[in-house]
Amino acid sequence: MDLGVTEKVRPLIDAVRQMVEEDIAPLDAEFHGEVGKHPDGRFAHTDRQLEILNGLKAKARERGLWNFWLTDSERGYGLTTVEYAYLAEEMGKVSIAAEVFNCNAPDTGNMEVLERYGADWMKERWLGRLLEGEIRSAYVMTEPDTASSDAAQLVFEAKRDGEDYVLNGEKWWISGAGDPRCGLYILMACTDPDAPKHQRHTMFVMDPDLPGIEVLRPMKVFGADDAPHGHMHLRFTDVRVPAKNVVLGEGRGFEVAQGRLGPGRIHHCMRAIGQAEKALDLMCRRGLAREAFGKPLVELGANYDIIANARMEIEMARLLCLKAAWMMDTAGVRAAQPWISQIKVVAPLMAGRVVDEAMQMHGAAGISQDTDLASMWTHIRTLRFADGPDAVHRRQVARAELRKYTQREV
Amino acid sequence: MDLGVTEKVRPLIDAVRQMVEEDIAPLDAEFHGEVGKHPDGRFAHTDRQLEILNGLKAKARERGLWNFWLTDSERGYGLTTVEYAYLAEEMGKVSIAAEVFNCNAPDTGNMEVLERYGADWMKERWLGRLLEGEIRSAYVMTEPDTASSDAAQLVFEAKRDGEDYVLNGEKWWISGAGDPRCGLYILMACTDPDAPKHQRHTMFVMDPDLPGIEVLRPMKVFGADDAPHGHMHLRFTDVRVPAKNVVLGEGRGFEVAQGRLGPGRIHHCMRAIGQAEKALDLMCRRGLAREAFGKPLVELGANYDIIANARMEIEMARLLCLKAAWMMDTAGVRAAQPWISQIKVVAPLMAGRVVDEAMQMHGAAGISQDTDLASMWTHIRTLRFADGPDAVHRRQVARAELRKYTQREV
Amino acid sequence: MDLGVTEKVRPLIDAVRQMVEEDIAPLDAEFHGEVGKHPDGRFAHTDRQLEILNGLKAKARERGLWNFWLTDSERGYGLTTVEYAYLAEEMGKVSIAAEVFNCNAPDTGNMEVLERYGADWMKERWLGRLLEGEIRSAYVMTEPDTASSDAAQLVFEAKRDGEDYVLNGEKWWISGAGDPRCGLYILMACTDPDAPKHQRHTMFVMDPDLPGIEVLRPMKVFGADDAPHGHMHLRFTDVRVPAKNVVLGEGRGFEVAQGRLGPGRIHHCMRAIGQAEKALDLMCRRGLAREAFGKPLVELGANYDIIANARMEIEMARLLCLKAAWMMDTAGVRAAQPWISQIKVVAPLMAGRVVDEAMQMHGAAGISQDTDLASMWTHIRTLRFADGPDAVHRRQVARAELRKYTQREV
Amino acid sequence: MDLGVTEKVRPLIDAVRQMVEEDIAPLDAEFHGEVGKHPDGRFAHTDRQLEILNGLKAKARERGLWNFWLTDSERGYGLTTVEYAYLAEEMGKVSIAAEVFNCNAPDTGNMEVLERYGADWMKERWLGRLLEGEIRSAYVMTEPDTASSDAAQLVFEAKRDGEDYVLNGEKWWISGAGDPRCGLYILMACTDPDAPKHQRHTMFVMDPDLPGIEVLRPMKVFGADDAPHGHMHLRFTDVRVPAKNVVLGEGRGFEVAQGRLGPGRIHHCMRAIGQAEKALDLMCRRGLAREAFGKPLVELGANYDIIANARMEIEMARLLCLKAAWMMDTAGVRAAQPWISQIKVVAPLMAGRVVDEAMQMHGAAGISQDTDLASMWTHIRTLRFADGPDAVHRRQVARAELRKYTQREV
Repeated sequence: MDLGVTEKVRPLIDAVRQMVEEDIAPLDAEFHGEVGKHPDGRFAHTDRQLEILNGLKAKARERGLWNFWLTDSERGYGLTTVEYAYLAEEMGKVSIAAEVFNCNAPDTGNMEVLERYGADWMKERWLGRLLEGEIRSAYVMTEPDTASSDAAQLVFEAKRDGEDYVLNGEKWWISGAGDPRCGLYILMACTDPDAPKHQRHTMFVMDPDLPGIEVLRPMKVFGADDAPHGHMHLRFTDVRVPAKNVVLGEGRGFEVAQGRLGPGRIHHCMRAIGQAEKALDLMCRRGLAREAFGKPLVELGANYDIIANARMEIEMARLLCLKAAWMMDTAGVRAAQPWISQIKVVAPLMAGRVVDEAMQMHGAAGISQDTDLASMWTHIRTLRFADGPDAVHRRQVARAELRKYTQREV
Repeated sequence: MDLGVTEKVRPLIDAVRQMVEEDIAPLDAEFHGEVGKHPDGRFAHTDRQLEILNGLKAKARERGLWNFWLTDSERGYGLTTVEYAYLAEEMGKVSIAAEVFNCNAPDTGNMEVLERYGADWMKERWLGRLLEGEIRSAYVMTEPDTASSDAAQLVFEAKRDGEDYVLNGEKWWISGAGDPRCGLYILMACTDPDAPKHQRHTMFVMDPDLPGIEVLRPMKVFGADDAPHGHMHLRFTDVRVPAKNVVLGEGRGFEVAQGRLGPGRIHHCMRAIGQAEKALDLMCRRGLAREAFGKPLVELGANYDIIANARMEIEMARLLCLKAAWMMDTAGVRAAQPWISQIKVVAPLMAGRVVDEAMQMHGAAGISQDTDLASMWTHIRTLRFADGPDAVHRRQVARAELRKYTQREV
Repeated sequence: MDLGVTEKVRPLIDAVRQMVEEDIAPLDAEFHGEVGKHPDGRFAHTDRQLEILNGLKAKARERGLWNFWLTDSERGYGLTTVEYAYLAEEMGKVSIAAEVFNCNAPDTGNMEVLERYGADWMKERWLGRLLEGEIRSAYVMTEPDTASSDAAQLVFEAKRDGEDYVLNGEKWWISGAGDPRCGLYILMACTDPDAPKHQRHTMFVMDPDLPGIEVLRPMKVFGADDAPHGHMHLRFTDVRVPAKNVVLGEGRGFEVAQGRLGPGRIHHCMRAIGQAEKALDLMCRRGLAREAFGKPLVELGANYDIIANARMEIEMARLLCLKAAWMMDTAGVRAAQPWISQIKVVAPLMAGRVVDEAMQMHGAAGISQDTDLASMWTHIRTLRFADGPDAVHRRQVARAELRKYTQREV
Repeated sequence: MDLGVTEKVRPLIDAVRQMVEEDIAPLDAEFHGEVGKHPDGRFAHTDRQLEILNGLKAKARERGLWNFWLTDSERGYGLTTVEYAYLAEEMGKVSIAAEVFNCNAPDTGNMEVLERYGADWMKERWLGRLLEGEIRSAYVMTEPDTASSDAAQLVFEAKRDGEDYVLNGEKWWISGAGDPRCGLYILMACTDPDAPKHQRHTMFVMDPDLPGIEVLRPMKVFGADDAPHGHMHLRFTDVRVPAKNVVLGEGRGFEVAQGRLGPGRIHHCMRAIGQAEKALDLMCRRGLAREAFGKPLVELGANYDIIANARMEIEMARLLCLKAAWMMDTAGVRAAQPWISQIKVVAPLMAGRVVDEAMQMHGAAGISQDTDLASMWTHIRTLRFADGPDAVHRRQVARAELRKYTQREV
């Protein structure tokens, strides 16, 4: 069980870390400062934003720092998931970094769907451009009126009508659907509500500009609309999608969704661990630099314990994440599920606690625009819902444990 | 130790609760929806916002629901702090409610300063208009370059020059300084850095529009600027303030600050308890209404335990808050300090946990604009800094405990 | 809601505290040091033990410090439950103190059963002697082969046979059944397994020396048998009990059990709060007296925070306990149930944490025989099972909360 | 960073696990049941106890399951610390197992001292017999009147007098000093209180039966004396030890102590992880087998979450333990110190929580003699003091973290 940094990935880690620190971090604040300045509104990039993004992406490609997430594949570096984890951690430290290296959600998951389950024409039409970073994509699953953690409940409807399906319903929290560069929707719809639980739904691919698709509003995350990326609330009214746009086959939506989620979940966790590292770094620097009552903050109150606890929590979460990655590499996504669920619970909670303490060490500066901590804190909180709430993953872990003892359904 | 609802306050609680639910809550979202629509920018009210606020305030005054915070005073109802706690809890449930009843921070604390320590001319000039709700005010204390929890460190300078003081320096997180109705600054400045620790600073009153006062930027709270209230970063350059504007006397700034803080701290706590109650209410409703895996959410996972823990935590925090209030009423603010510090630590942590669980029960809706939970969550987080970080208050509680055993400084 | 110390109870608190500190505490260690020295074995008192106990009890009676638990009664002081709480807290601080004042479990609960539901002949035969402290008693309910928290499952059998019932089965954790002075069993048995859930069981009173009752073994609590009190595992083989020994009527066992449990539960909590106070006291003294790395322990690590948290937790638990007591006094045991459940969860957890930290401050001495902390720690842990495990009480609290919103069974 | 089970250690794990389950576990309860039956008192083995121990040890040797702890050594298997961790985890599951394989504390640490720092005559006299399991040993360091976590404070005195040193003072918590087979003391004494902090103390080896050594009493651990092993309180009065019995040299006691502690600390952690695994196993079995309210316990309350949390915590602690072991293997004990401190904090806290929840799932059976949980719980609690309290290790972790940022002493 080698969870360490391999010779192969070590220079990549160094190169990514250097580019994140030296090239991306200095532009990150400027990028976000541009939000809302586009004459057409918030959900469009300003020229400067595109210049920043495209410049950085070009530099990344030039240096060969691109598409690392294509693990075990001939298209990319053929990294293992364990190796990728170390890179993703570095990318987690600055908000726009993952996109710079074309390793950002939800595109990586969507590309995997195309790669693994897509028909050739789908790959031609969308996968190439996604791999090049020319377009972005959205994964259209969650619905407002059902607890989407129980995906069998999803009611958004796709009805067969001749050569087409006709889609009707609402979807929300469609991340990336605000981005004008979004060129692909991968959408899950109910094609047969009376079928067995896991055969009711079907996965579709489509262009986002089909007639009948309407953006109702951006969902806000603690008050922020995350423009121009956005998490959109969409309404579909009699949207016609050709039957050939079905992925894998009618009724096989769950199969596709399951295959998609493993890597996506763990990538979020890897980046969250990177954020926790960054927060601990900020916490230590602040605690040494700032004084009160005649002493540096680190020597006051419980601050030694707080720093130590942060280090221990990060260390453990990273090891668990690496083990889950190693399970994916060696036993496959399905067998690795309990470990993926474990890290999916652990990493966001851990990172949330570390960032929280880092904020506290900063005083009011910690919640302001003067550090990245505030946006890290709210972002990490969303991970406790994304790809399934904690409760659902804890249940998965418990059931995996109990299946060692009993055959009956638990 | 009567911590209960008295006959005197019971009808006031009912009236406040009714007005919050029926009159204020329905307009709260509309009020916030107007933010940013003023042609002059974010830090001004739209006509509709003023209409909402002034209409509600007029209604509150009409019903005699006004200035309850004037405890133990002939000007108001002469409520005890315990009685006021029950009212403040109700006001905490909707964000603009406290202002509607003229019970909002930082005005109540500032009015107390004027009432208790102000010269007659100060009362004439500012106190009356504040009590009428005509103007608002700001408390100008915190500084960017020092850990302001150790107030003795504050370096913003006021130098005597003839009949005036000349003020220079920066202050930040000046809440309410964005509001165009802000008509008073109460400001703490260092007049003698070489004096004994608690005699270095002096408290001033002044109009906010003096020459040389500059708003550098609004501080953001998890990305929000809280316009038009605002938490401003100010720079003072050679601002001249007449010597008669000193409160109580040169070098007595600490004395004023201490007297101001007791009630202010506990009012925040009372409102936080109201927010926790509201969050628990939302959590129960959601848990009963929403289904997954064939059951209402309350019957899944640890949700019974989560609800029970929330109820127990709220119950205990409320009782502790009431006891601190009762200590203030019966033994005075100074003797009540350890209890005020206790509740100052307990209430925001408790409310944060309850709101966090309520969000989790709501799924992604919980962090969106569709409930108040997201803004409650970020607001409550700020209370762990406001009026002193947790660590400083824990230290106060511990020292009070240890002074039972030893005379020496601990 | 007066939760304070009344004029009536203040002198009693002082008298009890003084007697606990000056008379009982100095003999407590000696009492326990005698355990096991009786020639007839562990479950008998040595002469010295009886001398200590009887001497202290005589002194308590002489001073009128006796049977305080008889709240709202003409037999005793007629104290309220709130008033009693302050006394019970003092008694909690030394292990044998509650018995000295004839306020010990399970006797108080058993006396309440007799007082409230007992026939006259039962009162004559047992109640008088219990009130005098001449005999002790046991409550015989829990069974080894069922989760006794779901009392409807209890299977110990009582079959009517002419004028008698014939009892067969096992009971365990029968506290006090080791004490040779034990003169009464109150026992719950299943008389009709097919009846509706809460009418299956019947409560009996009986002498402990009936033919067919056998002590299988003492149950150990973390290795201790708590001799001579003991928590016995009993087997009943064809034990005949006259039908007149039924309390209240066949099938009414649940009714009796419910009425018995409210006060019993809260008394445990009151004493646990007393133990937490004592632990905090020991923690502060140790932290000030002991040095390491050139400083008193209190100034190292997170110790200020630990002390502050202990103080806050105790303060809140005490207030919650007093509120539950006040509910019992003003609204009755039934209406007070959710609050009793709340404090039943809160108090043992809180006391466990405080004692744990106090142990840690003592280093290895904290787990040794040199302080009371070790025995407090294991004793308090048992309270998380006694009178219902935490999970059952949390469920009660949650259900009470949800009943505010729905009529259906939750 | 290979943290997995190697081909080399896999068959050893299987063999150890099998012997623990099939041979040792069935005799463990009988061994403890014999305690106190020896006619000479508690601190001697009965014939049956010796028969059990010696029989099992012979069987272990026969199978070649012996002295695994000799990592990186030619005398044993030459296992890495990572490999040993997997074996120690298995041994942790039954209380007498470690001794059966001659891998028990404090002997392993003491043997390492002899191996690494002992003169040839010391090895001849004691090391051989220890490696054979013929004698046992004690490490005599902690003192009653100082916080021994700050070892520089230790005052037990050794004064040079001709060819001898004369020893005076008290030591306590000397584990294993109750065992009649104890044939070696390794003792730290102060030889020069005025020397620099880490040169004041000297390490001695000696027979335990020297004139002037007196056992004052056994220290009790939550009421248990752990006979016949015992944790003794000793008094030394003018005990003469030859100067040649000094290990490494006068004033070098700290050096020896530091070298000794690394492996010892991590071995405790490995075994604690084994205990947590066993507790989780018992928790699952109980939760599936026991019913209440018509359901198996696992389906009630928060039990799924509790099981999941236990699994996640164990998984993370094990990985952290393995990483610390790997650091010891690859970078040496000194460089591994921060990781050893991390796992020293994490493992006992984690195991304590898991055992606590397992007890709760068992109801009152969980604290009784009917499962191993109660003794695991109290034993694990002692690990939070043994080899340094949590606070000291947290401080080490924090200081290691801060040294990345600053040269000055933190």
